[in-house]
Amino acid sequence: MPAKLPEPVQTMIDTFSRLPGVGPKMAARLTFHLLQKSSFDIGRFITAMEGIQQGLRPCEQCGHISTDPLCAVCSETGRETGQICVVEGSLDVIALEKAGSYHGLYHVLGGVLSPMDGIGPDQLRISLLVHRIETRANAGEQTEIIMATNLSLEGEATASYIAKELQSFVSGGTLKLSRIARGLPMGSDIEYADPTTLARALEGRNTVPYGDSRN
Amino acid sequence: MPAKLPEPVQTMIDTFSRLPGVGPKMAARLTFHLLQKSSFDIGRFITAMEGIQQGLRPCEQCGHISTDPLCAVCSETGRETGQICVVEGSLDVIALEKAGSYHGLYHVLGGVLSPMDGIGPDQLRISLLVHRIETRANAGEQTEIIMATNLSLEGEATASYIAKELQSFVSGGTLKLSRIARGLPMGSDIEYADPTTLARALEGRNTVPYGDSRN
Repeated sequence: MPAKLPEPVQTMIDTFSRLPGVGPKMAARLTFHLLQKSSFDIGRFITAMEGIQQGLRPCEQCGHISTDPLCAVCSETGRETGQICVVEGSLDVIALEKAGSYHGLYHVLGGVLSPMDGIGPDQLRISLLVHRIETRANAGEQTEIIMATNLSLEGEATASYIAKELQSFVSGGTLKLSRIARGLPMGSDIEYADPTTLARALEGRNTVPYGDSRN
Repeated sequence: MPAKLPEPVQTMIDTFSRLPGVGPKMAARLTFHLLQKSSFDIGRFITAMEGIQQGLRPCEQCGHISTDPLCAVCSETGRETGQICVVEGSLDVIALEKAGSYHGLYHVLGGVLSPMDGIGPDQLRISLLVHRIETRANAGEQTEIIMATNLSLEGEATASYIAKELQSFVSGGTLKLSRIARGLPMGSDIEYADPTTLARALEGRNTVPYGDSRN
């Protein structure tokens, strides 16, 4: 069967199809949506793409995406510089910032350990994290690390690996290490919770009056 | 809260969000997917967009998207030029071509009648269709039209409207008008079919041996 769509249209559909979560049907819908727009609107899309094509880099301190050497979080005044929340990616920073209750800094790993995909410790920003804490320790400063990698197999493994790497600082008394709490999400029914989550929620139970029993 | 993402990144997220079926979370995921790609890969996306930005137009005969005055279907040799399948958009042409059993031509309306959205007969390629059949009738040629607008309220209304517009050709004996069959989709369970579909499927029942009873 000969192609029934002009080559530029087919190319656009194929390009959209390569995006995660975009199947061939959605790619076609997106392409025809753009085709119904004016050349000016497509131009805005091109301009946005050109905008992210260059000039972006990881923050030199934490790895969060940035246009400047230091990202918007690291360069913000009034943050608690003694707290570092370790996350997988920049989108996690955005989610935690939206939650609004955390005022420390971040460390963006750039992924998780995944031997199957060839991602080992050297592919992540782990040595930079160790260096960051080392520098603080040498200056006589205490650091608190909150491990906030995803609650997936890889996320847990990565958190464990990093915890082991940082053990000497914990023993040395310059580092306090914690993991973001595992438990029932807000609004959930105990009846419908999965067994692992329930077990974790029981394990991490807080003494009355409510609060973090570990402090 | 100050923006925690560089402005080009936020702009790309906002631009993706404007696409149909792409929510803010998916837009962020798509943007960070592109950010993990090389500048070259983003460049390919830009090139694809530039490709559809200009040089595309509706086929002069049927309205299907094309780079040339006549589209790939209209310019293909060996099509049955006496059959015209009337569809809403170019994606319908692709779907019908994939089915592989139709060898006539198409007429792409460019939408459906939708008074609420300000889309009347003049916004669709209806008069061009009438003109197409008139030309054939004047040349003493028979035409068969298969109405294949969607089986939605608007699609049905549009099919009815066009049928009325073409009534004089039917009475004049130069036009045969049909509607794509309504019935149960392949692989479906009668038990779970909706009442309207079942009613239509009963109405359109075929005499044994199986085949179209109307022919």
